[in-house]
Amino acid sequence: MVLPRVQVRELRRTYGFEEVAIVPGDVTTNPELSTTDLQIGPFRFSIPIVASAMDAVASPSFAGLMGKAGGLSVMNLEGIWTRYEDTTPVFDQITSAPKEKVTEVFQRLYTEPIKESLVARRVREIKATGAVAAVSMTPAVTKKLAPIAVEAGADILVVQSTVTTARHISNSFRGLNLSELKAQIRIPVLVGNSVTTSAALELMEQGIDGLLIGVGPGAACTTRDVTGVGVPQVTATMDSAAARDEFYARTGKRVVIITDGGIRTGGDLCKAIAAGADGVMIGTPFAQTKEAPGRGFNWGMASPHPALPRGTRINVGVNTSLEQLLFGPSHRTDGTHNLVGALKVSMSMVGATTIEEFHQKAELVVAPTIATEGKIFQRSGQI
Amino acid sequence: MVLPRVQVRELRRTYGFEEVAIVPGDVTTNPELSTTDLQIGPFRFSIPIVASAMDAVASPSFAGLMGKAGGLSVMNLEGIWTRYEDTTPVFDQITSAPKEKVTEVFQRLYTEPIKESLVARRVREIKATGAVAAVSMTPAVTKKLAPIAVEAGADILVVQSTVTTARHISNSFRGLNLSELKAQIRIPVLVGNSVTTSAALELMEQGIDGLLIGVGPGAACTTRDVTGVGVPQVTATMDSAAARDEFYARTGKRVVIITDGGIRTGGDLCKAIAAGADGVMIGTPFAQTKEAPGRGFNWGMASPHPALPRGTRINVGVNTSLEQLLFGPSHRTDGTHNLVGALKVSMSMVGATTIEEFHQKAELVVAPTIATEGKIFQRSGQI
Amino acid sequence: MVLPRVQVRELRRTYGFEEVAIVPGDVTTNPELSTTDLQIGPFRFSIPIVASAMDAVASPSFAGLMGKAGGLSVMNLEGIWTRYEDTTPVFDQITSAPKEKVTEVFQRLYTEPIKESLVARRVREIKATGAVAAVSMTPAVTKKLAPIAVEAGADILVVQSTVTTARHISNSFRGLNLSELKAQIRIPVLVGNSVTTSAALELMEQGIDGLLIGVGPGAACTTRDVTGVGVPQVTATMDSAAARDEFYARTGKRVVIITDGGIRTGGDLCKAIAAGADGVMIGTPFAQTKEAPGRGFNWGMASPHPALPRGTRINVGVNTSLEQLLFGPSHRTDGTHNLVGALKVSMSMVGATTIEEFHQKAELVVAPTIATEGKIFQRSGQI
Amino acid sequence: MVLPRVQVRELRRTYGFEEVAIVPGDVTTNPELSTTDLQIGPFRFSIPIVASAMDAVASPSFAGLMGKAGGLSVMNLEGIWTRYEDTTPVFDQITSAPKEKVTEVFQRLYTEPIKESLVARRVREIKATGAVAAVSMTPAVTKKLAPIAVEAGADILVVQSTVTTARHISNSFRGLNLSELKAQIRIPVLVGNSVTTSAALELMEQGIDGLLIGVGPGAACTTRDVTGVGVPQVTATMDSAAARDEFYARTGKRVVIITDGGIRTGGDLCKAIAAGADGVMIGTPFAQTKEAPGRGFNWGMASPHPALPRGTRINVGVNTSLEQLLFGPSHRTDGTHNLVGALKVSMSMVGATTIEEFHQKAELVVAPTIATEGKIFQRSGQI
Repeated sequence: MVLPRVQVRELRRTYGFEEVAIVPGDVTTNPELSTTDLQIGPFRFSIPIVASAMDAVASPSFAGLMGKAGGLSVMNLEGIWTRYEDTTPVFDQITSAPKEKVTEVFQRLYTEPIKESLVARRVREIKATGAVAAVSMTPAVTKKLAPIAVEAGADILVVQSTVTTARHISNSFRGLNLSELKAQIRIPVLVGNSVTTSAALELMEQGIDGLLIGVGPGAACTTRDVTGVGVPQVTATMDSAAARDEFYARTGKRVVIITDGGIRTGGDLCKAIAAGADGVMIGTPFAQTKEAPGRGFNWGMASPHPALPRGTRINVGVNTSLEQLLFGPSHRTDGTHNLVGALKVSMSMVGATTIEEFHQKAELVVAPTIATEGKIFQRSGQI
Repeated sequence: MVLPRVQVRELRRTYGFEEVAIVPGDVTTNPELSTTDLQIGPFRFSIPIVASAMDAVASPSFAGLMGKAGGLSVMNLEGIWTRYEDTTPVFDQITSAPKEKVTEVFQRLYTEPIKESLVARRVREIKATGAVAAVSMTPAVTKKLAPIAVEAGADILVVQSTVTTARHISNSFRGLNLSELKAQIRIPVLVGNSVTTSAALELMEQGIDGLLIGVGPGAACTTRDVTGVGVPQVTATMDSAAARDEFYARTGKRVVIITDGGIRTGGDLCKAIAAGADGVMIGTPFAQTKEAPGRGFNWGMASPHPALPRGTRINVGVNTSLEQLLFGPSHRTDGTHNLVGALKVSMSMVGATTIEEFHQKAELVVAPTIATEGKIFQRSGQI
Repeated sequence: MVLPRVQVRELRRTYGFEEVAIVPGDVTTNPELSTTDLQIGPFRFSIPIVASAMDAVASPSFAGLMGKAGGLSVMNLEGIWTRYEDTTPVFDQITSAPKEKVTEVFQRLYTEPIKESLVARRVREIKATGAVAAVSMTPAVTKKLAPIAVEAGADILVVQSTVTTARHISNSFRGLNLSELKAQIRIPVLVGNSVTTSAALELMEQGIDGLLIGVGPGAACTTRDVTGVGVPQVTATMDSAAARDEFYARTGKRVVIITDGGIRTGGDLCKAIAAGADGVMIGTPFAQTKEAPGRGFNWGMASPHPALPRGTRINVGVNTSLEQLLFGPSHRTDGTHNLVGALKVSMSMVGATTIEEFHQKAELVVAPTIATEGKIFQRSGQI
Repeated sequence: MVLPRVQVRELRRTYGFEEVAIVPGDVTTNPELSTTDLQIGPFRFSIPIVASAMDAVASPSFAGLMGKAGGLSVMNLEGIWTRYEDTTPVFDQITSAPKEKVTEVFQRLYTEPIKESLVARRVREIKATGAVAAVSMTPAVTKKLAPIAVEAGADILVVQSTVTTARHISNSFRGLNLSELKAQIRIPVLVGNSVTTSAALELMEQGIDGLLIGVGPGAACTTRDVTGVGVPQVTATMDSAAARDEFYARTGKRVVIITDGGIRTGGDLCKAIAAGADGVMIGTPFAQTKEAPGRGFNWGMASPHPALPRGTRINVGVNTSLEQLLFGPSHRTDGTHNLVGALKVSMSMVGATTIEEFHQKAELVVAPTIATEGKIFQRSGQI
């Protein structure tokens, strides 16, 4: 029997942080020469690190501290801070709930309605610290909450859902028109999350100022487990950065690429930037600082679907200060502290003094992690 | 010494669920817009999930519940339900046997002869629930049992063995002629299992209505351990779906592709469908529902060879209801509950509102699972 | 500065058992139709399985039992059996020595000289069982011991060292000329171990009758850990089988390829044969039978270098009988029992009724093992 | 919408020790025929193994023992030995400090100033043993300390930092001009670490005599965790050896390539040499000998940045003597002892009698380590 010849599509290989490494350059510099500025619209930050819009991380006072440190913290306008005037008893309930009751506690606490007065108040509280006030919301509530936040003085708006595209087919409320939004409010708008070159280009065409990169980045992340959807962060960042470069070459407008998700160490951060990111968004490491409101716990934002699980409460522990996390000194060899120092050393090893130079000079190679028995011994020796 | 040049064949790379991920699309939709219909012959199911023909899963009453849920359950006509009129004491013996006695108990219980009267009775019991009655048997007994089942009202016939091909060379009973069977009985016939494009095409030429895909799907599966035979499910599904599409283009007949084996989470299910399956067949997750007859245990069907091991009894536990497994709400972040909700969200992320659209729009990439120490922390953050 | 362009050689990817799987065929047969004959010179064996020349496995009586089972057992003529007339107290010492004393015990026991009288006697003991008498020795002693063994009735000679080549540059005793040996003794000569096409071809040119394939097959094997040398077994077998086929096409002489090392399950065995082996040599699984002299222990043969470690004593346990290991019935789902049954089922799944047909019809694909949490559940379901 | 086509760079695959293996050759030799000489400038060493410039390893007396063994030990001139006249109480403090105090103890002890008189004295102590005196320093102190060491009789100078390049852009002290240094001091200069062909070529152009290869070699190494920078050792060695060969072909000068980092077993050492290294630098295995000053502990050298972590103290244990480590006899099958014997056997298996021949004849293949359950059993059988 002669069978017809059938063609099967080939699958592209993608890469995450654990699988790549940065090749040292032919020229080196001193880390002290490195600058790590991140420019978002008219705002310039001396460190390219943004704190995630998570309730356990980004309180108004944390935003102030991040601002003093040279970075940015994004407040979630759909979380505890805009549902409750006094958040202390709310954090008490979350952090003291026994493990088996946490889901129930979350479900109860997060059904309290969002108050418009608190939206404005939280923005003003951030402004009062002297920091740039960045606020985050999902597309569904943007038309309603964004004007209130802007009116109260918000400097940067982040519109964020699990997957964001320029075109959304909807029979309900999610069809947010980004071009209209940009025309209406005059502050920089960051949008996310996306992972592909084509989605990034379409979003850039809407006039946005920055993109958050990251959907189901890790094999162990909930989006990937539940829906199978996800792209590892190195590939997602490279693809999105390619869109930024093409868009810039064509239009002269530079849209900021911020890698969001899966970054745990200085090494991860350096790889994200080397892959083309202008900055990174980080959650859990900030939740582990003593300045974070979460008291050693962290939990997800919201669910893309009412019947899918909300984020679990994770006991991440408090193991550092914001200062030490960002600038050291570090007593640990696993790269979890002194993120900015690590980035500067990494840049110096490839001879880059700015992040743009780092993009150009850093070569990434595939260098997989292989679990080995005698692993611990390999940690000795040179740093 | 000049040696002759010798050519060695190259090996093709294949992929399983753990190694791939679905790329989000350039357009998104609302999950509420997604339909997930599965059409088998004249029967239309609103969810593309079929319960495996396992004794611990597919009782007549379970078939009724699956039917009410919009899916299908397949009854094994060579198991406990057709060997015993009263199955309660049989399940008692299996579930209460100490671990070291289980094999012996299985060997004794499964040598009780199959009763033709019970074959008819079980079919009628399923029909009485209002559900579509699907029954399963091995090729060896099909000539004998299929007419009895059809006579009793069976709606769909599943002929299933470890590896099924259109051509079988035999000196004994297994040489079932599928074209003749199709001519004789007038109900849809699903056949399995197969994994290659060529085997699928040959089976389709026999006039069958659907194919079960999956032979030794996982590295830890018994078929693979024992015989070395197996193809990971993503590749098997893609190859078989390519056969379906070619056959449809050539003949206008659409044969259903159902991925059977290795699906544990919503993510796996979504990847199977994204790879081209029209539906999936699932066993263990159903065995973990309180509605399943197995009381938290599951065991394999039958052995392809008398001297090879029968399936072991696995303590899978009871951790959910059928309703929660299929439709949520889920309190777990590992993707094991709310399978239909997960599929709809996954479809919405690639902008697909039907399963056929999902086939066309979903891009799969290779994104391997790498075990990392700090894994648990990565579970926090956005879903 | 303009740097010269430097070319770095690329590395070839090789494969072991854990990384490949056999694709089912388009035609299937009944396992009962499969024959699994192995022909070595004038001797025909009904099962293609050879017991390793290890002291803990291949006693004269074990050789008899293997012969009755249809296979072959190779006696090591440089081990305990030719150093001691009464081996019982020797096995007593080895198996009862505390762990920390084993090396010392081995070093003492294996310095006892080999007795020529015992060489002849062991051969005659094997002959007395009615089995084909196969004996093994290293190249260094072959000129001396081979004639004695042949004189005593040996049927097959195995000349084995870690790496064997046709050309050996030496200032001492190892320069064995295989052509001369073949001219001198008139029985089939198997030589090993080798792994490459070119080494196999050169050895075949010397007139040998069979090749043992395997050097440092596994990542955890001593040769690989100590010297870095090794080739995974699937690639080694495919490359050597290609040499066999080329040599046969050119000369009409069929040299037997026997994969030796790393085979633990039916799946491994089936993959070795599918990759082109005519037979396999197995040690540890035989050491786990109650008929083996090692009483649940196994240890390596000899060391390629006096200052390198001798094999360790491994407690492999006694978990089966020779009959059950080869022919079942098996109560385990991990493929460690009923090796011949597994091979016949595997052959039937690709529609092969002879091993040569299996070579032609079996397609191997790369299907890596990925450790997954829920692994145990995947064992349920169909075999 | 028609999107512009965007090109994303592809990533090169690199390899570490765990992923490669050496293919046996078509000709074998006797290990006794192998020579393993390493030539550095006018000095010839009979074994190609260099002890790392770590305080826990390379004391003056250890240098003497390495010299007698035929190798080389490099003294760190910026560590304990040049900060303290009497090092015994310093080692006491380090080795007896409780785990949580170690960082503090290190920070205190390593701030004691380096004494120029001790620099000269340690060199003279090494010379007094009769060994070749090799000393190591970072670029920052080379102009100051190198002349003192040379004056005191140092034979070989090693200038070492995490990443070394010929061109370094600096506003502080690190801009060491290697050509000037070479002109000033008349002893061989080894420089490191580097990993790429281009960096190696640029350094060779400066007139250096040898290169240390290795930056962030392992996935678990601190440089990689902290900065993301690193290249697995097999690729780094192959790339650097290619530079050596090109430079030699063009200039007639042979620069020595020494692989530094990640070598734990004989297998690793053999793979490094097979990949093109002329020698290897090893730390932890020497720290495990009873002759090493570290008493079963090891710790890193220095930090590339004041705010990044110093090396941790690792309890590596004392499990061998220097003699046994280098020349056996070994009672272990994991390749951690008898490194020279292992190299000679490895060379004999590919038919090489010199290291240059080994470079030419050894083929490396990709043969990844895959963790398997029954791993321990695979250790039995042939070595």
